[in-house]
Amino acid sequence: MRISELSARSQVPIPTIKYYLREGLLPQGEQTSATRAVYGEDHLRRLRLIRALIEVGRLPVAAIRKVVDAVQDEDLPVHDMLGTAHYALGPEVEPDPDEAAWRDAGDRARALADDLGWAINPNAPTLDELAQSLLTLERLGMAADPEALRPYARAAHALAEHELAGVPFGGPRDAAVEHLVIGTVLYGRLFDVLRRLAQESESSRLLGPLRAADGHSE
Amino acid sequence: MRISELSARSQVPIPTIKYYLREGLLPQGEQTSATRAVYGEDHLRRLRLIRALIEVGRLPVAAIRKVVDAVQDEDLPVHDMLGTAHYALGPEVEPDPDEAAWRDAGDRARALADDLGWAINPNAPTLDELAQSLLTLERLGMAADPEALRPYARAAHALAEHELAGVPFGGPRDAAVEHLVIGTVLYGRLFDVLRRLAQESESSRLLGPLRAADGHSE
Repeated sequence: MRISELSARSQVPIPTIKYYLREGLLPQGEQTSATRAVYGEDHLRRLRLIRALIEVGRLPVAAIRKVVDAVQDEDLPVHDMLGTAHYALGPEVEPDPDEAAWRDAGDRARALADDLGWAINPNAPTLDELAQSLLTLERLGMAADPEALRPYARAAHALAEHELAGVPFGGPRDAAVEHLVIGTVLYGRLFDVLRRLAQESESSRLLGPLRAADGHSE
Repeated sequence: MRISELSARSQVPIPTIKYYLREGLLPQGEQTSATRAVYGEDHLRRLRLIRALIEVGRLPVAAIRKVVDAVQDEDLPVHDMLGTAHYALGPEVEPDPDEAAWRDAGDRARALADDLGWAINPNAPTLDELAQSLLTLERLGMAADPEALRPYARAAHALAEHELAGVPFGGPRDAAVEHLVIGTVLYGRLFDVLRRLAQESESSRLLGPLRAADGHSE
């Protein structure tokens, strides 16, 4: 297809497509004359991935380039390709100013993952996020010992098992990464909403059994 | 205690305490002379709650006032008081421009809550968040039917049960709200991290059993 059709089908404006071509995020089309190129289904799929990374993952262009490079490097195992996308989705974590506390929290984060039997790259930035979470919980007087975290870990593991089983590993690499990124972000947001709804329902059950039937007033 | 001690113990600067007093977020102290007032443990507790709402909940002052009003209104049942805080934590949801799709998504959100047997106020803003989540998932081609959402709902319900059981209902109203707010936000963030870690572990199990032992390279 010509760039105009690629634009129409992907709903990405032509100047944006040209920008992605210049930046190397989208591979060049097949040149059919000095001024014309044609594009295929893989270009459409790449545009879908880029839009997912921007609109759902809210990633900056530099992070998108890293993900696209991993997708394009056919020698990179699928697990590592997914990891590149996955790590890009997490927030940057600043080490805590209290160095001893930060080191200790990092040790406990790794120990927790080990204890759960999870296979995690010891350099995963997600472990820094976990360390930060543990520190913040403790400083605010909330339970953050392995026993208190077990219900969360159990629920997280059940969902992750279900989710990874749904990633389309058999098809193109772009499609697998797109599914992982959209799923990680959107089902994460959905879960947060469902948890707050379930909390309201539980509060109603515990504190207002009669009120539950007709809803509570604001 | 004097305002200087209240400041030292709460770690809130005196000008900020005076601002909360003027805004009615913190009740006046007991006046002991024309220029002096003394404060008690309930003031300390209120300051803890306000800091939690600002620093953890990231709520603006107008939202904090609503929560504090609910805490102070002893006639308001605890369930409704918690609901006020809880609803304030959710993001503002703009109705979708496609009115028919938005109405339909709202209906499906309520039907889902009913189907799960959850007791939810039909006007809960959380239901709008759920409707928005369903719409976004569908538009991006991800499963959002009740069957697909069941694993998330089940996990959310198990955690909510566990969490509500931990709210200190026996004590002061401020303490219950503070616990709910901090717990909702921080364990929510923690869960998101644990889910991504569990996904990495599952990916490793599915795609790289041998690589799992020595971690994957970046």
